[in-house]
Amino acid sequence: MKSLTALIALFFFATQVYAQISEEDLTQYVNPFIGTQEMGHVFPGACVPFGMVQLSPDTDTVPYAVDGQYTGTVYRYCAGYQYNDPTIVGFSHTHFSGTGHSDLGDFLIMPTVGDLKLNPGTAEKPESGYRSRYSHEREKAEPGYYCVQLDDYDIKAEMTTSSHVGFHQYTFPETKDAHIILDMNHGIYNYDGKVLWSYIRVENDTLVTGYRITSGWARTNYLYFAMVFSKPIKNYGGKNFEDLVYKGFWRKFDQENNFPEMAGKNLKAHFDFETQPDEQIKIKFALSAVSTEGALKNLKAEVPHFDFGKVKAEAKNRWQQELSKIKIAASPEKKVTFYTSMYHTCINPIEYMDVDGQYRGLDHAIHKADGFVNYSIFSLWDTYRALHPLLTLIQPKRTSDMINSMLAHYNQSVHHVLPVWSHFGNENWCMIGYHAVPVIADAWMNGIRGFDVNHALDACVSSATYKKYGNLDDYMKFGYVPFDKNVNGSSMTLEYAYDDWTIAQLAKSIGEKDVAGTFETRSKNWKNLFNEKTGFVGAKDSRGNWKTPFDALHTANEGFIEGNAWNYSLYVPHDVSGLIEKMGGNNRFCEHLDSLFTMYLPDKYFAETEDVTREGLIGCYVHGNEPSHHVAYMYNWAGKPWKTQERVNQIVNTMYLNKPDGLCGNDDCGQMSAWYIFSSLGFYPVCPGSGEYVVGSPSVNKAEIQLADGKKIVVTSEKLSAKNIYIQSVILNGKEWNKTFIPIKEIINGGSIQFKMGAKPNKKWGITEESRPFSMKR
Amino acid sequence: MKSLTALIALFFFATQVYAQISEEDLTQYVNPFIGTQEMGHVFPGACVPFGMVQLSPDTDTVPYAVDGQYTGTVYRYCAGYQYNDPTIVGFSHTHFSGTGHSDLGDFLIMPTVGDLKLNPGTAEKPESGYRSRYSHEREKAEPGYYCVQLDDYDIKAEMTTSSHVGFHQYTFPETKDAHIILDMNHGIYNYDGKVLWSYIRVENDTLVTGYRITSGWARTNYLYFAMVFSKPIKNYGGKNFEDLVYKGFWRKFDQENNFPEMAGKNLKAHFDFETQPDEQIKIKFALSAVSTEGALKNLKAEVPHFDFGKVKAEAKNRWQQELSKIKIAASPEKKVTFYTSMYHTCINPIEYMDVDGQYRGLDHAIHKADGFVNYSIFSLWDTYRALHPLLTLIQPKRTSDMINSMLAHYNQSVHHVLPVWSHFGNENWCMIGYHAVPVIADAWMNGIRGFDVNHALDACVSSATYKKYGNLDDYMKFGYVPFDKNVNGSSMTLEYAYDDWTIAQLAKSIGEKDVAGTFETRSKNWKNLFNEKTGFVGAKDSRGNWKTPFDALHTANEGFIEGNAWNYSLYVPHDVSGLIEKMGGNNRFCEHLDSLFTMYLPDKYFAETEDVTREGLIGCYVHGNEPSHHVAYMYNWAGKPWKTQERVNQIVNTMYLNKPDGLCGNDDCGQMSAWYIFSSLGFYPVCPGSGEYVVGSPSVNKAEIQLADGKKIVVTSEKLSAKNIYIQSVILNGKEWNKTFIPIKEIINGGSIQFKMGAKPNKKWGITEESRPFSMKR
Repeated sequence: MKSLTALIALFFFATQVYAQISEEDLTQYVNPFIGTQEMGHVFPGACVPFGMVQLSPDTDTVPYAVDGQYTGTVYRYCAGYQYNDPTIVGFSHTHFSGTGHSDLGDFLIMPTVGDLKLNPGTAEKPESGYRSRYSHEREKAEPGYYCVQLDDYDIKAEMTTSSHVGFHQYTFPETKDAHIILDMNHGIYNYDGKVLWSYIRVENDTLVTGYRITSGWARTNYLYFAMVFSKPIKNYGGKNFEDLVYKGFWRKFDQENNFPEMAGKNLKAHFDFETQPDEQIKIKFALSAVSTEGALKNLKAEVPHFDFGKVKAEAKNRWQQELSKIKIAASPEKKVTFYTSMYHTCINPIEYMDVDGQYRGLDHAIHKADGFVNYSIFSLWDTYRALHPLLTLIQPKRTSDMINSMLAHYNQSVHHVLPVWSHFGNENWCMIGYHAVPVIADAWMNGIRGFDVNHALDACVSSATYKKYGNLDDYMKFGYVPFDKNVNGSSMTLEYAYDDWTIAQLAKSIGEKDVAGTFETRSKNWKNLFNEKTGFVGAKDSRGNWKTPFDALHTANEGFIEGNAWNYSLYVPHDVSGLIEKMGGNNRFCEHLDSLFTMYLPDKYFAETEDVTREGLIGCYVHGNEPSHHVAYMYNWAGKPWKTQERVNQIVNTMYLNKPDGLCGNDDCGQMSAWYIFSSLGFYPVCPGSGEYVVGSPSVNKAEIQLADGKKIVVTSEKLSAKNIYIQSVILNGKEWNKTFIPIKEIINGGSIQFKMGAKPNKKWGITEESRPFSMKR
Repeated sequence: MKSLTALIALFFFATQVYAQISEEDLTQYVNPFIGTQEMGHVFPGACVPFGMVQLSPDTDTVPYAVDGQYTGTVYRYCAGYQYNDPTIVGFSHTHFSGTGHSDLGDFLIMPTVGDLKLNPGTAEKPESGYRSRYSHEREKAEPGYYCVQLDDYDIKAEMTTSSHVGFHQYTFPETKDAHIILDMNHGIYNYDGKVLWSYIRVENDTLVTGYRITSGWARTNYLYFAMVFSKPIKNYGGKNFEDLVYKGFWRKFDQENNFPEMAGKNLKAHFDFETQPDEQIKIKFALSAVSTEGALKNLKAEVPHFDFGKVKAEAKNRWQQELSKIKIAASPEKKVTFYTSMYHTCINPIEYMDVDGQYRGLDHAIHKADGFVNYSIFSLWDTYRALHPLLTLIQPKRTSDMINSMLAHYNQSVHHVLPVWSHFGNENWCMIGYHAVPVIADAWMNGIRGFDVNHALDACVSSATYKKYGNLDDYMKFGYVPFDKNVNGSSMTLEYAYDDWTIAQLAKSIGEKDVAGTFETRSKNWKNLFNEKTGFVGAKDSRGNWKTPFDALHTANEGFIEGNAWNYSLYVPHDVSGLIEKMGGNNRFCEHLDSLFTMYLPDKYFAETEDVTREGLIGCYVHGNEPSHHVAYMYNWAGKPWKTQERVNQIVNTMYLNKPDGLCGNDDCGQMSAWYIFSSLGFYPVCPGSGEYVVGSPSVNKAEIQLADGKKIVVTSEKLSAKNIYIQSVILNGKEWNKTFIPIKEIINGGSIQFKMGAKPNKKWGITEESRPFSMKR
C-alpha cells in the first residue's frame, strides 16, 4: 500500500511539476553538444542569439580538395567540430549551424606553450603542430560560453561573445614561451588558393588589426578584424608560407620578426608572452565585413572593458530572453531537447552589419542598413518551411528585418533576384527554388508589415522569372523543368509551383490580380509532372516523354534531389487535396503515406540519401532531409488525423535525442529544430503562406508563446503522457474546435489552444471534409 | 649683298621671334613620343595633368617572371609601350611615367573585328591573339589625346581623358563581329598570381562595373571601374582561365555567355556589337580606388555626356594651363624639348581620390581627404631633387596638397613613416633614403604654408628614426650604414646625412632647437665614410674597417646603388664646401669633376649602370641616374662657374632630344624633365631646403614663371645663342648680382633675373668666396 501511495504521490507530483510554467533559467536546458557528432553539423562554441561572431573549436583541417580531388571527409566538418575527434586545432570566429555544405572558420586562434609551431599538425600526431588533445570531461558548453582544457599545453581555454566580439580567456601555466597563434589560412571547406589575400597590422603592443578575403562557397568574402590583448605582446612574428614569384622591395625587411605589417595568401602569425602560474591572457576579437575601423567600432560599442564574466553574463541573459519566447511545462528531459532546439533556431541568420549599420553587400560595396538590422545566412531551401514561420510568430521584428535584408540583397543583385542561399554578402546559389518568396508571403499573410510590400512583390516576380536561374526559362516554356535540361527538374518544378502559389497569395492580398492570376496558373505546374500511370511525380523530358525506367526509390538521376519520388511526390503543400485526387483518393493516399513510413529502404537507395543517418529514416521517410518535413501532417487531409498524431509523436520522440549524435540529419540553420518546436507545440506550418497551421500531436504539457506587444498564445495539453498521444478534442480560444488546422489569424494577436489527449485515437475528431486544411483553398 | 641683307633680316627676324613670349598653343610643342623608345619609359597615351587615368597603348605582355625566373625584358615595359614594337596589345588605364620598376596597366581594352580571341597573342604572330599591327604613320599623340589605326582590324582608335575617366572612341568598319575585349588579367610587371581577384558586373546593356585587386609592386592594390558604352551591347561573355579547384554552386550557370556576374583570378571578357561602316563605339571608363560607386560618381561628375571632342578640348585646355606656368621665348625646337619636359613633370604624382575626396589609404581602408587633394605616385628618391622643387615654385597649391597627402600616408602607416616610394595607397619601399623629408623642408623654406608644420616635423623625425627601415638602426648606432649590414650602405649614409640636414633646417625654422641640433649632428655623418686615403667616399664595415679592395668605378658591391664612388662621393649637397675641403681643395675637387666628365667608363662598369643608355653618359657622369643630377653645378663652389655653365649646356643639348629615344634614361616621374626645365632657365636646386638655386647656363631667351597670386619671375638671357653659353653678368631684381646662387626668397614673390651671355667664359664673375652657394651654411 505504501508503495502505491508513494507512486500516486509521485504521479501527482510529476503531473503538477510538468503542468506548470515556472520562471527559471532556461539556458540550463540547452545542450550545445546535441548534434555535434556525425550529421547534425552544429557547433558547440559560444555565440549570442543571431550574433555575427560564432566562436567555436575546430577539430580538424580537412581541405575541400587535395590535388583537385574532393576529399569527401570535409563534409563532416561543416561546423568545424566533430564530437569524436581527439584534438582541437583552435578556435575560429565564424561558423554555420547545421549546414550540409560549408565555408567560414575565419581567424583561428590557438594558445600554445613551448616550441613555436605554425602548422596545425595532424590528429594522429598532435605534437607535429599547434593543435592539442582534449577530453570531453574537461569541456563545457552552454549558451554564450564554451570552455575546454587543452591537455597538451595545460591551458584552460574559455570563450564567450557579444554579437561582433569573440572574447577569449586563456589561463596559462607558468612559462616563458606562451604563444597565441593566429592562423589566417585556416578555414572550413578550405583548399589551396581559397584565401585570396590576408593582411595583419600590429598597431601597437596590444592592438592588432587585419582582414582576409576568401573565395569559397561565398565566392568573394571580405572579413576584417580588430584584436586586443589584455597584456602587451612581448614578441611577435608571422610567416607567409607562399612560394613568392615576386617579392617587391618588401624583401628588404625581415618580415617574420616583429614586423608590423604582414600580408600574403598563406599567412600565420604568433604573439608571444611570458606568463606567471595561472595567469590569464584575454583577447577581444571583433569582426566586421566592412573594415578594420568597423571592427574597432564594434569592439568599442560592445565590449569596452576586459571583464570576461560580464560579457558571459550578458550573453546568457540574451539567450534567456530568446529562449523565453516560448515557455513550456514539460519534463526536464523534454526541456533539454526543446530548448536546445530553440537555441538552434536562434543562431542563423546572423546580424550581418556593424554597430553603425554598415555592411558589405552583394556587389562587394559598402551599404548602410537604413531603418533595419541587416541579416545574412539564409539557407532558404531549408528554412522557409518552419524556421521562418517560427520567427514570423515569435520574432516579428527580426522577421521584418530579415525581409528587408532580402530586399536589400535583391536591390544589390545584378541578377535582380532575392536570396537563394546567401551568406556574408554573397549568393552561393545552393539548392533549388526561390524560397525567399514564401518567407515574404508567409510573413505578409501573418501580419508582418515592416517592409514595402509592393517592392517585395516586384522582387518575388523578378526572382520567379529570371531565366538564367534554375532552368526558369524551361519552366516557363514547358510548364515544368525537363529532365534532360536539369537532372533535378522534378524537384524544381514542385517547389516552383509551391513558390508560385505563395506569390499569388501575396499578390491577391494587395489587389494585384494580374500577377495573382499568372502565378495561380503557374502553381498548377506540379500536375504536369504527375504521372497517373505510376501514381508518382515523375521526370519528363523536353519532348514530353516520361523518363523510363522509373524507380520511385531512386533519388539520383530520377529528377529529384534530397528525396526520391516516394517522398517528393508528396510535395504539393498548396494543393494537398488536388494531390490526393491525383493519387487516387483518400485511401490510396493513406496507403502511400503508410508505405512510406513502413517500408524498408534497401541500402543501395539509402546510399543516395544525403546528409542523414540510418536512424534518420522511418521506413523510407527521411526526416533528416527537408522535402518530407510536412509529410507526417498529410493524413489530416485524408481524414485520418490520428495517423498524423502517431507519426509526429514518433518523430518527435526518436529523431531529437539528448546526445551528441542526437540529431538524425543536418540541423540546416535551425529548420530541423523549428520542426521540432512546432511539432512539440501540436501544430506545424505545412504550407507557409496559407495562413494556417496544421494540427499534429503536442508533446509539451503547456506552452506560452510570446508574441509582439506582450500578447501570447497559451497551449495546454491535458492528460498528455507517453501513451496519451492522441487528440481527443481541441478548444480554440475557448470554443470547441473540430478542424485539423488552426487559422493563424485566430491566434496571432493572442489566444489559447487546449488539447485534450488520450491513449486511443479519437477517430471522430477532425475527419470531416470541412475539418481539413486549408481554408484558403476552399 | 642681297643675300647678306636677307641673312641679316632673317637674323633679326629670328632674334625677334625667339626673344618674345607670345600667347600661343603650347600643347603643339609637346611630343609625347619623346622617351617612348628604350630607356625613357614614358608612355605616349592620353591623360590630363596629374590625372588618375593615364590611358595608353601597351605594346607587349612580358611577364615579370616565368616559372619563378625574372625575365629581364619586362623592364623595357615599365610604361607598357616601346616605340619599336610592331603591335599594340590594347589600351590600359593606369601607367607610370618614366619609372625603372613598374606595375599597373589596369583594365586593358582592345577593340577587334572578326573571330573572338581572348588571349593577346604574340608580337611574332599577332593573329594568334587579339593584338593588332599598327604603324607610326597612322599614330598620333598630343597632350590629352592619342590616336592609332589598328591595321589588323581596320579600326581607328582614339582616346582622351578627364582626371578619372578614360574616353575611348573606336571607329569600326562594317561588321557583324565587332568586339570590345576587357582583359582583367593584363598588367605591367605581371606574373601568374598577381591578380588576386577580379570581378565584373554587367549592370545593364550599356553599363558594366567591376574591380580587381592585384599584388605587385603595390602589394595590395584595389582598383574599381565603371564602364559605359555609347551603344547597347548585343552580346557579351567572359572566361576565367583559372583551373578551379572549387566551383561552388556557380557551376550551375553557364558563366561564359551573357552571364552578368563574372569573377576569378584570370578573367577576360568581351562585349560584342554589330557596326555600320565607320560607326563609332564610344566607351567611358571611369576609375576609383574606393568602389564602383566611386567610379560612377567620378564618371557622372566629369563626363556626363558622350561628346568626345569636348573631353579632348577640355584635356587640351588643362594642359595649356599647366604648360603656361612657364612661358618661354625660344626656338621651336627648344620649345619642343622644353614643353615636352613640362608635360612630363605634370603626369606624376596623380590625383588619387574620387571627386568626393574619398580614397583608399595605406591601411587599405577608405579615407576622406579633408581640405586637400590626395596625391599618389611619389618616386621620392628621384623627385625630391628637382621635380618637387619645381612644383614648389610653380604649383604651390599642389605642393601643399602633396605634403598633406604624404602626412596622411604617415598617419596611416603602421610603421609611422612618410612615403618612400608610394603609389595607389601602397608603400613599395623602392630605393633608399627618407626623401619625403627634403620635399617638406624645401617647401616650408620656400614659403609653402598649407600644412601643419609641427605635425610634419614629427613625421620627419619619426621617419628618420624608424629602426626597421633602411638600416636606420645601424645608421644611428654607427653613424653610417656599414657595408656588411647593407650593400648599399654608403649611398644610404650620404642621403640620410642630407635628409637629416633638411630636418635640421625645418626644425630650426620653427624653433625646435633640440631636434635641429640632433639632426644637424647627424647631417655630418657623410664624413664617417669619406676615406681621406682614397679621396672618395668608401664603404666601411661595422667594425670600422674600410672595404678593400676598393674600386671607385664599380657600383655593385662597393656600397653604392645607381652610381659608383666617383659619382656618389659628390653627394653632399648640404656641405659642398666641406666636401671640397675633404677632397683636397678647389683644384683637386675640380680635377675630380673634370675627370668625371672626361674619362671613359669601361664596358664592365657600364654594365652595372642601371636604367641608362651609353648616350646617357658623359665620361663617367651618368645623367640618366639621379645621384649625379647636381654634379654639373658643383664647379660654382670651387670658383669655376664657367665650367658649370659649359657642362650644364652640354647636358641640356645632348641628353634631351626630340626623338623617341631622346631621353637618355628613365624620366623617373618627371625628375629628369624637371632637371631640364630648371637648367634651361639658368638655375637648379642643388640642395633643396637650402633656400637657394644654383646658377647654371640658361638656354631659353626669355621665360616667365607663373607664381601664386598672379606674380611672376621673368628670366631673360641676353645674347643667348648656340655659342653664347657663358654668363657674362647677372642682374637680379634690377641689381648687379655676382653670386652663383639665387636666394629663392628674392624671387618667390616675383622678380627678375637677367643673364647676359657671351661666347667666352667671364672668369671674373661669381668666383669669390662670397659668391658661392650656400648663404645658409655661412
